[in-house]
Amino acid sequence: MTMTSTDAATEGHEAAALLERTRAVVDPHLRSAVESLPGGIRRVAMYHFGWENADGTPATGQAGKAIRPALVLAAARALGGDPERAVRAAVAVELAHNFTLLHDDVIDEDTTRRHRPTAWAVFGIPDAVITGDAMLALAQRLLAEDAHPAAAPAVARLSSCIIELCAGQQADCAFEERGPDEVTLDECLAMATAKTGALLGCACALGALYAGAEDRAVRAMDGFGREAGLSFQLIDDLIGIWGDPDRTGKPVGADLSAHKKSLPVVAALTSGAPAAAELAALYRGPMTTSGEVNRAADAVDRAGGRDWAQVCAADRMARAVHHLSRAVPDPGAAGDLLALAEFVTRRTS
Amino acid sequence: MTMTSTDAATEGHEAAALLERTRAVVDPHLRSAVESLPGGIRRVAMYHFGWENADGTPATGQAGKAIRPALVLAAARALGGDPERAVRAAVAVELAHNFTLLHDDVIDEDTTRRHRPTAWAVFGIPDAVITGDAMLALAQRLLAEDAHPAAAPAVARLSSCIIELCAGQQADCAFEERGPDEVTLDECLAMATAKTGALLGCACALGALYAGAEDRAVRAMDGFGREAGLSFQLIDDLIGIWGDPDRTGKPVGADLSAHKKSLPVVAALTSGAPAAAELAALYRGPMTTSGEVNRAADAVDRAGGRDWAQVCAADRMARAVHHLSRAVPDPGAAGDLLALAEFVTRRTS
Repeated sequence: MTMTSTDAATEGHEAAALLERTRAVVDPHLRSAVESLPGGIRRVAMYHFGWENADGTPATGQAGKAIRPALVLAAARALGGDPERAVRAAVAVELAHNFTLLHDDVIDEDTTRRHRPTAWAVFGIPDAVITGDAMLALAQRLLAEDAHPAAAPAVARLSSCIIELCAGQQADCAFEERGPDEVTLDECLAMATAKTGALLGCACALGALYAGAEDRAVRAMDGFGREAGLSFQLIDDLIGIWGDPDRTGKPVGADLSAHKKSLPVVAALTSGAPAAAELAALYRGPMTTSGEVNRAADAVDRAGGRDWAQVCAADRMARAVHHLSRAVPDPGAAGDLLALAEFVTRRTS
Repeated sequence: MTMTSTDAATEGHEAAALLERTRAVVDPHLRSAVESLPGGIRRVAMYHFGWENADGTPATGQAGKAIRPALVLAAARALGGDPERAVRAAVAVELAHNFTLLHDDVIDEDTTRRHRPTAWAVFGIPDAVITGDAMLALAQRLLAEDAHPAAAPAVARLSSCIIELCAGQQADCAFEERGPDEVTLDECLAMATAKTGALLGCACALGALYAGAEDRAVRAMDGFGREAGLSFQLIDDLIGIWGDPDRTGKPVGADLSAHKKSLPVVAALTSGAPAAAELAALYRGPMTTSGEVNRAADAVDRAGGRDWAQVCAADRMARAVHHLSRAVPDPGAAGDLLALAEFVTRRTS
């Protein structure tokens, strides 16, 4: 499947409208679920979602792009289900996603998210860990209390996905302990699939389950989300090196100065190109100055890491589209899902 | 209901035998569930349960007393259910309990558990947080994948319990930030009920659900476990001050030097006795020497905190027995549950 730039622009616009509609449908339920949390935890959660400031006064921050809830609802609709009945699943997936953000920020010691200090930076590590825990339990409770026949398989699927996500996050941390030439590209791809692909796949699979789809379609939907997720991660890794700080809310080359073994970096390190050794040497040092960070970014580029990531992202997107065509043979019905997948892989922040 | 010392000795023996039988039934399932976790996470989990050393070699440590799984199975049996069919629920509750231990040790910065270094002290905070997360998801998955009709309500109940536990842990942390006379005894009791009572109540309620008991009996079982849990916490708090380090595996007066606002301490601080002011003054200082810790323990005693905790533990136990008699009117059928409750409140380590 090829797309002209006019198609892409149209789909980008469609996806933005879809995400806006998703927010309008999902946000009230998400917010009332979060508001049901007990006192001290609710406060941290309300801050994390951008609905309150640190002092508890109302805020009008944005609570993220709602890509995962949009995938749940679009997958349900594409398979002939009623998206209204899948709203609870959409809320559960968004809660699970935000559980991972709360814990990942603690683990990665990230101090900024969505242009604000992260929850742990404001409330401390204990409150951020505890609030993440409660958010995961809340996600499971919402599904388990649903009278929908897909509820129990949805809990099982979300739980398996969380275990996979944890394995991905654990591998990511373990990679940082290893030397610059001790992580293979395959390991790195497996890690990214677990860390990012699994939850996007789960979102699509939950939508399929809630539409009453048969197992084959649920699995194909999972494959679509996973591959789109990996494409998304590749783009995210590129943004982590070459993104505009005004748009990302993070400093230039943040992933490089943190010595992250992201996909373009590992592709460069394992390329065998002369710039690979240069990059490895920089990765063995502190990389605190902007000169060092710029030299590392340049080395990733010269060693082919940037091009590889762009080609790989396109390849994964093609695989995603193939899975989608198996899950939803009618291209008309698959339009929203395709628009969402294209949207996330074309974003610049 | 009163018990003679001969009854108590018999029941203590019965309870120990019951816990041993529970371990024999539950451990193989618990272990195979933990072994199903992905690589890096499995290693931390196997260490935490005492089945492996830090280097991955087999260990023969003890994995805890299995009180919660024993409560699940005993509650199922007491209400006419088949305990064999409730093993999965027993495993899920034990996994959920160990999820809380992994995270609590990070949050409380505890370096020793069951006479060994805690998981975070060996593997670092990220691995301990991630492994706890995966363990909670594993507990939910085990329940959700169960074909038993109680599976969905069990997931919902366990999830609600985890949220309550998190609220209790959050309150506990918040109390430590407050001054010695800024926490009321009611707040402290509510915190302990959430932090300890909720999961013991949930264990009993899950056993009742798996026996197909009606809602009234499920709620009475929850009440039994909660009150027994609060009694257990009071005893645990006494051990945290006056326990024998050889048996507890923790230094003398560990809770005092950590400035914990445990129940006997808050009872002493809010007693109005002359020793309360002395204790408050010690709590405002560092309490690093054994002399200071001993003076604080003595002040808790003189202000009546020790006696109060003992009387309160007995009172909560009486309430537990009352709930139990409503859930299981036949005293013969309630014997195992009663023996377990008496056992946990008479323990010395």
